[in-house]
Amino acid sequence: MTGNRQVWLAGRPDGIPQPEHFAVRDADVPAVGDGEFLVRNIYLSADPAARGWIVDKGNYLPRIEIGETMRAFALGEVVESRHADFPVGTFLVGLFGWQEYAAATPAQVSFRVPPGDLPLSLSLGVLGINGLTAYFGLMRIGEPREGETVVVSSAAGAVGSCVGQIARLHGCRAVAIAGGAGKARQCIDEFGFDAAVDYKDGAFAAALDAACPDGVNVYFDNVSGPVSDAVLTRLAHGARVAICGTASLSRWDPWPQGPRVERHLLVRRARMQGFVATDYAAEYGAALQKLAGWVAAGAIRYREDIRDDLDYAPFALRDLYAGANNGKLIIRLPAAEDYEAVR
Amino acid sequence: MTGNRQVWLAGRPDGIPQPEHFAVRDADVPAVGDGEFLVRNIYLSADPAARGWIVDKGNYLPRIEIGETMRAFALGEVVESRHADFPVGTFLVGLFGWQEYAAATPAQVSFRVPPGDLPLSLSLGVLGINGLTAYFGLMRIGEPREGETVVVSSAAGAVGSCVGQIARLHGCRAVAIAGGAGKARQCIDEFGFDAAVDYKDGAFAAALDAACPDGVNVYFDNVSGPVSDAVLTRLAHGARVAICGTASLSRWDPWPQGPRVERHLLVRRARMQGFVATDYAAEYGAALQKLAGWVAAGAIRYREDIRDDLDYAPFALRDLYAGANNGKLIIRLPAAEDYEAVR
Repeated sequence: MTGNRQVWLAGRPDGIPQPEHFAVRDADVPAVGDGEFLVRNIYLSADPAARGWIVDKGNYLPRIEIGETMRAFALGEVVESRHADFPVGTFLVGLFGWQEYAAATPAQVSFRVPPGDLPLSLSLGVLGINGLTAYFGLMRIGEPREGETVVVSSAAGAVGSCVGQIARLHGCRAVAIAGGAGKARQCIDEFGFDAAVDYKDGAFAAALDAACPDGVNVYFDNVSGPVSDAVLTRLAHGARVAICGTASLSRWDPWPQGPRVERHLLVRRARMQGFVATDYAAEYGAALQKLAGWVAAGAIRYREDIRDDLDYAPFALRDLYAGANNGKLIIRLPAAEDYEAVR
Repeated sequence: MTGNRQVWLAGRPDGIPQPEHFAVRDADVPAVGDGEFLVRNIYLSADPAARGWIVDKGNYLPRIEIGETMRAFALGEVVESRHADFPVGTFLVGLFGWQEYAAATPAQVSFRVPPGDLPLSLSLGVLGINGLTAYFGLMRIGEPREGETVVVSSAAGAVGSCVGQIARLHGCRAVAIAGGAGKARQCIDEFGFDAAVDYKDGAFAAALDAACPDGVNVYFDNVSGPVSDAVLTRLAHGARVAICGTASLSRWDPWPQGPRVERHLLVRRARMQGFVATDYAAEYGAALQKLAGWVAAGAIRYREDIRDDLDYAPFALRDLYAGANNGKLIIRLPAAEDYEAVR
């Protein structure tokens, strides 16, 4: 029958996944078993975390095997159902993969898309896992207090840009670290950071000092590596470091070396803690409502970089890690045409 | 007038302070100014933290300058007073230095020695900063829960031995890491750890695996370095790492390198946090009462290594870092003779 185009993992990269590690195939639209439902994907997400799903051995999800359809968050509609809780017409975000159709179970579902007037695609970004990651990481791990300095790495990204704006909504001074003068500028002009520092600039250290005269109370870290090393030497007493990602490190074998952090944590009585948004899945509903309110009111701004068609997917992670995207990177499937006019 | 022998800092070590970095002098017994009181020291403490006070530039206390009397915790009695809250006859632990007499202010005082029948010297160890460090680090940063595995580095030491016993009192499985088969044995036989691993043994990694079949829920770290690197790869989901000290690292310039920790923290949703006992000074009284109860009941055992006379002090840090002591290293001054019979 075919009719279900898929991107599958064709090779195992050593570092950042490149286009040649993926291939496109035409598969059958899957049959729906008992307790399953058929999701017709509309938008697919490209996330930095996918690198870890491909490369790492012992991670928080099993590694993707060669030949498997690429794991990814996607937004779709239930078009056939053998599960009473997921009737036809339900819009869902979940791990439905880089494909047009998925026969899914409830375990793959991240959340139901709440009704509303905002574009559906936002549920893969600022009103999806990115926004939830920003919200829970900042509020639960960063625990920002009014007047504190919150530094965000990869600050022009889908998560980082949201972190800075939530920090400001809580009375904090938000400092962006981004790659290149253009992205630094965007952090201030578009996302409202109080200051932005370009880590590719030779004066990075001095600029970071100037942007954080009282040290760093909260560091929301998406990158690890030398950028984070610089931030860790500037922690204020009692600082909190939320470890969200390690995008600057291209491989884990051999394990990357860096300056030891223990002394910083000891002298500053600081805390470093890793988290993943899914830890807070039971609280998604309330958080999404809060985020949607801020977005609708214009208090949180976002940027999307929407690329057409599944054939782009093999290039997505390469572009993401090269910083070649400008906003949340989303792959729009032809199915989107049926929905963009409706909502 | 003289009569106040002192050990002073005569040179700046590159790594571990050696005997040649100290000298002994005979100074005057200091005059007591308004708001001060004269402490006659009885026992002096030798603590790993003193290395940092000598070597580090930006630490939680100002660096000790060449020519200054060595900063150290000591236990003494007020023998002259111009401060109403510290009358003659008060027994105090505080930063009174490696000397016979200190003209002190309240800022130097850590705590008043509670009345009781236990030996005075314990107030420099298990009923002093060591015990308080163990208690607050484990309970507030480690947050042990019944049935969890608590791993302690430098486990035969004054702090580590106490951590293991407090962990067991809270229903945890306590695993010791110590240097040498003798110390590992002591951790089990004397301090009641459930398992002990010798990090100097070639089979360290395998032994650690065997001792922690379900991973490590709490790691109380006194050492940093390769020992800690091994523990961090074995963290359980939601683990807590309490950073108490970095004894295995001999210098901070150049800054020591090691495997980056971010990925462990992220994948395991783990937390690393530095602390110093003095952060909890307001709660010392209640904690000392609890510790004294456990010690009196035999539920916490301790070992002291008491050396006679101030002339030993220059050798103390070298011995401590070489692991040449066997128990809490305390320097007993001649004044002790006047008190040991009394109490």
